Amino acid sequence: MTQSRLDKLNASLHTSELDSVILNPGPTLTYLTGLRFHLMERPVVLFFAKDQVPAIVLPELELQKVASLPYKIQVFAYPENPSEWEAAFRKAAQALGLDGKRIGVEPRALRLLEFRYVKSAAPEADFPDASDVLAGLRLRKDQSEIAAMRKAVKIAQSALEATIPSIKIGMTEKELSSELVMQLLGHGSDSEMPFSPIVSSGPNSANPHASPTGRKLQAGDLLVIDWGAAWDGYISDLTRTFAVGEVDGEYRRIHQIVLDANAAGRAAAQPGVPCAEVDKAAREVIEKSGYGKYFTHRTGHGIGMEGHEEPYMRGDNMQILEPGMAFTVEPGIYLPGRNGVRIEDNVVITETGADVLSDMPRGIRVVG
Amino acid sequence: MTQSRLDKLNASLHTSELDSVILNPGPTLTYLTGLRFHLMERPVVLFFAKDQVPAIVLPELELQKVASLPYKIQVFAYPENPSEWEAAFRKAAQALGLDGKRIGVEPRALRLLEFRYVKSAAPEADFPDASDVLAGLRLRKDQSEIAAMRKAVKIAQSALEATIPSIKIGMTEKELSSELVMQLLGHGSDSEMPFSPIVSSGPNSANPHASPTGRKLQAGDLLVIDWGAAWDGYISDLTRTFAVGEVDGEYRRIHQIVLDANAAGRAAAQPGVPCAEVDKAAREVIEKSGYGKYFTHRTGHGIGMEGHEEPYMRGDNMQILEPGMAFTVEPGIYLPGRNGVRIEDNVVITETGADVLSDMPRGIRVVG
Repeated sequence: MTQSRLDKLNASLHTSELDSVILNPGPTLTYLTGLRFHLMERPVVLFFAKDQVPAIVLPELELQKVASLPYKIQVFAYPENPSEWEAAFRKAAQALGLDGKRIGVEPRALRLLEFRYVKSAAPEADFPDASDVLAGLRLRKDQSEIAAMRKAVKIAQSALEATIPSIKIGMTEKELSSELVMQLLGHGSDSEMPFSPIVSSGPNSANPHASPTGRKLQAGDLLVIDWGAAWDGYISDLTRTFAVGEVDGEYRRIHQIVLDANAAGRAAAQPGVPCAEVDKAAREVIEKSGYGKYFTHRTGHGIGMEGHEEPYMRGDNMQILEPGMAFTVEPGIYLPGRNGVRIEDNVVITETGADVLSDMPRGIRVVG
Repeated sequence: MTQSRLDKLNASLHTSELDSVILNPGPTLTYLTGLRFHLMERPVVLFFAKDQVPAIVLPELELQKVASLPYKIQVFAYPENPSEWEAAFRKAAQALGLDGKRIGVEPRALRLLEFRYVKSAAPEADFPDASDVLAGLRLRKDQSEIAAMRKAVKIAQSALEATIPSIKIGMTEKELSSELVMQLLGHGSDSEMPFSPIVSSGPNSANPHASPTGRKLQAGDLLVIDWGAAWDGYISDLTRTFAVGEVDGEYRRIHQIVLDANAAGRAAAQPGVPCAEVDKAAREVIEKSGYGKYFTHRTGHGIGMEGHEEPYMRGDNMQILEPGMAFTVEPGIYLPGRNGVRIEDNVVITETGADVLSDMPRGIRVVG
């Protein structure tokens, strides 16, 4: 698997203006090499240069991770003393003849920590943005990737269904979040989960990126649960919004509007259509209802090994949807200081349309 | 709380050669401002300049997080379209007059994503490494921080004790890891946990940074469990090594050696002593036993809001231990392809000695 992915990267470099790329720990490195490292104070960098055996710089204590890989790699390991790290980077850059070359970087992942070591090892190199080349490798999911995402959706849905009966007025957002995480693990999620669930109630639900707090659920709250599972490194990312006891008529109305917007966004997802169309379809529903200014974010983001990756469902994004692209559709309405609604599904573009991986009921459900 | 921490940063800048620092989402930003953001494709940067009201650049959808802070801040929010992000950075840099100045960075946290936006907003600035200044702010924990770490240790220990009865021969490392995570949450850990537990058995235990696999526990294995909990943002990081059924005499011997090394490291931890002494004390025990070359990492790392932070217990680190410094003592012996042992505790330096926060039995226990 990984040799063919490295071959794919090599082919991409041949059609780009890049001589090489560098990668630090994260999804792209794992996708291409199967290697997993935590992002820590000890830098790890893969150097991949066109038509050469790749090189990796890493701490000696990680050597076993590269001891029996199914592809060739040159290893430059450094000891614990940071004064010796620079030498390992210099040797790797020299082995691939990288100085003066065009070394592509992934700015969203690469830290100054790794960048400064590489720059000092190849001071005459250029470091253009290689995000498009690298994201392109992961953009169209294959059948095994889609199967893993489908499983991650199933786990997430079962876990939330198992959690719903325990939701009670008076329990805190944090308590509910912990219960949900336990259910996610109990239903088989990878223990390295994509993100901590967002459990936000009442005024907190009007903050799209809230963290769970000690706030207790109250009758009349809307309750946003944005959660996901991971399976074999692939994730799901879903949202449902509940009513805690009886809620105000306006909150039921905005729930219905977001539901309609979600359906319109999913219906617009087709091969050959620009991402902007998905955003537009969902946004128009909310704008027509008069709540347009309370839908403060794009309609969705790509999904796969990361919670947020290409393609992005944004009004200005003319990228064309192709079979295998996977993303969220997640319109919302957020009334500051009051309540918010978001409904999020995971979609994969097919040859003829789109496959919605998530099917948990989207209508308002009363809990508590 | 956070105003006084920002004042502390301001005072630090006055005694440094820096005019300002920039921070992206992570523990330092949270420590200083109380703000939490996920590290995503939308950049968030705090600009802090000497004697000025700090500025933050962030997406509009995060505005509610800065709506009612207990300190003054200038907010520069950008919409979803990335072509408008640069302008927000330029305005923030101009508001603080940063171009041409010395803007300190934290290379371990700052990504090229944020760095390139700031550099383009202040093209004549220098960007020296501010790691020491920033780490210095968090280096000596106060009583409330130590109380949170103590609680995180208690949660972790209770959770592992509750997990031990379920450890059986034939269960996989991943199953055991999931069970432990559920117990951590059930015992009250923050749901945003410091790291996924390492559960490594047999040959996998010889890899210090192993991830849990589908390998089934077998009689004769050593079983390394490296786990932690989080409480109010502060973490614990512990390791115990178990015997699965009957294990070879050599494995019992290396367990005892590591136990002695751990005790020696803890005993060396005193105010006024360099970090190197802690490393040396633990390492000498292992070297004298003849297993020195199988202890492949430093003896410990600082701990607090992060799993790895200053001070580092490394043979070349002459940094002097002071009251309030908190760190791990975690010697190990790793026999490649066979088995490994690590025993890790969390220690805080006091006025007169050291307080070992963890007290779970360290001797070899038979499970399975």
